[in-house]
Amino acid sequence: MMGQVSENFDAVDVIITKRGKGELSDPQIDWVIDAYTRGVVADEQMSSLAMAILLNGMNRREIARWTQAMIASGERMDFSSLSRPTADKHSTGGVGDKITLPLAPLVAACGVAVPQLSGRGLGHTGGTLDKLESIPGWRASLSNEEMLAQLEDVGAVICAAGAGLAPADKKLYALRDVTGTVEAIPLIASSIMSKKIAEGTGALVLDVKVGSGAFMKTQEDAAELARTMVALGTDAGVTTVALLTNMSTPLGLTAGNALEVRESVEVLAGGGPQDVVDLTVALAREMLAAAGHEEVDPTDALADGRAMDVWRAMIQAQGGDPDAELPVARESEVVTAPATGVLTELDAYKVGVAAWRLGAGRARKEDPVQAGAGVEMHAKPGDQVTAGQPLLTLHTDTPERFARAHKALEGAFAVAESGAPEVTPLILERID
Amino acid sequence: MMGQVSENFDAVDVIITKRGKGELSDPQIDWVIDAYTRGVVADEQMSSLAMAILLNGMNRREIARWTQAMIASGERMDFSSLSRPTADKHSTGGVGDKITLPLAPLVAACGVAVPQLSGRGLGHTGGTLDKLESIPGWRASLSNEEMLAQLEDVGAVICAAGAGLAPADKKLYALRDVTGTVEAIPLIASSIMSKKIAEGTGALVLDVKVGSGAFMKTQEDAAELARTMVALGTDAGVTTVALLTNMSTPLGLTAGNALEVRESVEVLAGGGPQDVVDLTVALAREMLAAAGHEEVDPTDALADGRAMDVWRAMIQAQGGDPDAELPVARESEVVTAPATGVLTELDAYKVGVAAWRLGAGRARKEDPVQAGAGVEMHAKPGDQVTAGQPLLTLHTDTPERFARAHKALEGAFAVAESGAPEVTPLILERID
Repeated sequence: MMGQVSENFDAVDVIITKRGKGELSDPQIDWVIDAYTRGVVADEQMSSLAMAILLNGMNRREIARWTQAMIASGERMDFSSLSRPTADKHSTGGVGDKITLPLAPLVAACGVAVPQLSGRGLGHTGGTLDKLESIPGWRASLSNEEMLAQLEDVGAVICAAGAGLAPADKKLYALRDVTGTVEAIPLIASSIMSKKIAEGTGALVLDVKVGSGAFMKTQEDAAELARTMVALGTDAGVTTVALLTNMSTPLGLTAGNALEVRESVEVLAGGGPQDVVDLTVALAREMLAAAGHEEVDPTDALADGRAMDVWRAMIQAQGGDPDAELPVARESEVVTAPATGVLTELDAYKVGVAAWRLGAGRARKEDPVQAGAGVEMHAKPGDQVTAGQPLLTLHTDTPERFARAHKALEGAFAVAESGAPEVTPLILERID
Repeated sequence: MMGQVSENFDAVDVIITKRGKGELSDPQIDWVIDAYTRGVVADEQMSSLAMAILLNGMNRREIARWTQAMIASGERMDFSSLSRPTADKHSTGGVGDKITLPLAPLVAACGVAVPQLSGRGLGHTGGTLDKLESIPGWRASLSNEEMLAQLEDVGAVICAAGAGLAPADKKLYALRDVTGTVEAIPLIASSIMSKKIAEGTGALVLDVKVGSGAFMKTQEDAAELARTMVALGTDAGVTTVALLTNMSTPLGLTAGNALEVRESVEVLAGGGPQDVVDLTVALAREMLAAAGHEEVDPTDALADGRAMDVWRAMIQAQGGDPDAELPVARESEVVTAPATGVLTELDAYKVGVAAWRLGAGRARKEDPVQAGAGVEMHAKPGDQVTAGQPLLTLHTDTPERFARAHKALEGAFAVAESGAPEVTPLILERID
């Protein structure tokens, strides 16, 4: 915890400072975060401050202090008693982004422990916990002691963050969600990094998505967010690296909960779509290097089944049955290719919205999700397609949802009779 | 009331529009004001919208619609049954600004009815109702029927606005006060004008103060606010004129409740400080002209006692005794001139804060005020003073307040041994 926080501050003064493009002082930041957590600063005051921060920004010192104050609002975990180094990964969220599922066991199989605190989906991007919950019996909530024991025994944990970690961030994130103040780089960066630093990981690799299906639509914005987070991690003593990766088209061939678990297991079995394999391996290399194991080649652990072994142990340790049949949606409909030629576009955002509308995602935090719902893709940009062939299969338990999913997919794909599509590389930039 | 408001809007969409410097549509504005009044849009959503408006502005159409929506949130008064035209005045607030007290009876004595809805003081500027409440027996609250009857019988009413008038504005004003979103010209203009238009006056004269003791510190900002309000009034069919007037030094020789009533009665008796007389007459001419009585000279009604007769009738009609002794504070202290020469400065803001700290004003809405507290001035900028002569007399019932008042007055005045001070004219600009 930080030192005693003085009450000699006034929320309106803090707001007016930022409103006028001023810099918030360290004591102002410590006070406003602590007082907001305690309910002394009201929601309506924090939301006008958040809007002023969104529009007028914060400098590196302010963001670092804001992050520290959010960490100080709760407990910090400590993995120093483990027999191996730790590394974590965070993705800013995309469509079909199941990478955490094969990645955590793969890195653990290479000798680095992975304490992966994950979230649930909101809007058009999926949530790792929602995906894993499609496995019968699997549970997301672990105590800190269970998490530590599993890290020691299995080497990988994917679970929900406990309520004690950065409670200021939890409260602020819920507020930003309803007040139009989500899209502020200082607030996004401090939200992510406060949880990751409080979690106590030794190294961190950030997968910052760019493109239609991502939060950041341009590489410039994504790079700014990445640089801000790398600086925050480095300042806090966590070895931090970021990859900017393409999210203009979905990752892999599935978007949905059980659909993505199935694809992840294919990757762990040595198969799976090439882009999912490539990104998993690239992120694994970064995590291993950041944890001091740059000499290890993760492709070996994929090929020889060690990553699959860790996956099975990890699922079992959290009550799941790795051999159970995964849920399948009750109904499906096929979308066919409108022409013969090359698929030049398959828009990540539109596919994400379609999967969400089919029941894979939620509009409000308290909504349930359907385990089997989602979109299966039968071609990716660059592939040859024939008029009338299946392009997408839509899955849902509630067929009244098909109409809205088809609507979301309007203009989602394009077929050119000749020529090759512009292929964007999967990894756009590396920032450390 | 405006037409039915659709529920097909989302507060976050409205906030994001304004956050991105977009224009809010008429239906968006109608919905957000109505939904906020009903509690469907939450305080924390309205405050982030208010911050976005403060930082990104609104155009003339948006401000007009925002004002109309606030009017539509409550009742509208109607004075068309009166046998004479109506005119009202609004001041943006200053130190020693007691002009409403002699002005309302003066204009009524010249044949134009004055329905003056007034407020209480907050911070360093006084409130007209606080001043009149120092008169034994006088009450600020009238029903709409009482107000109409008094306008017909006496010709002038100064009273509190009823709860039914622009309730959206009342709620929004209280929110802006605690969220650092007061100083937004679109919100200030729409707040003032929604009440004045809903009140139903036929003509309106705005006294927009400029200088240290005013809300607007520069003539440029004051002119922008004045132009915005004149446009709103004109668009709503109310003949509206604004005077920009100097508030770098207090008006008259008193700042405080009973102190200012006493000075106002001196003006009605044909005496009083020249600046108070000049501004009262100038505003009376504007109100008479705006109501179609430009041929009437208000100085006659001051000289022959007709204005005083209306004052007495107005006070009596609201339960007050115009002949009662006014409260006098229990304690006083004198501040003397530090040198012999010309008083070159007497700062309105510092005198206002001193009067406030002596007990004339309040820090929170629920605080009481002292009727007798305040500052009496014995010289104005441009006057000759002698070292050691009384410059100010401070009045309070609670002598422990003197120290903080003296502190507020540090640097409030300056005496030059030779030369004349720069005299700023009382009326800086006229906008119609």
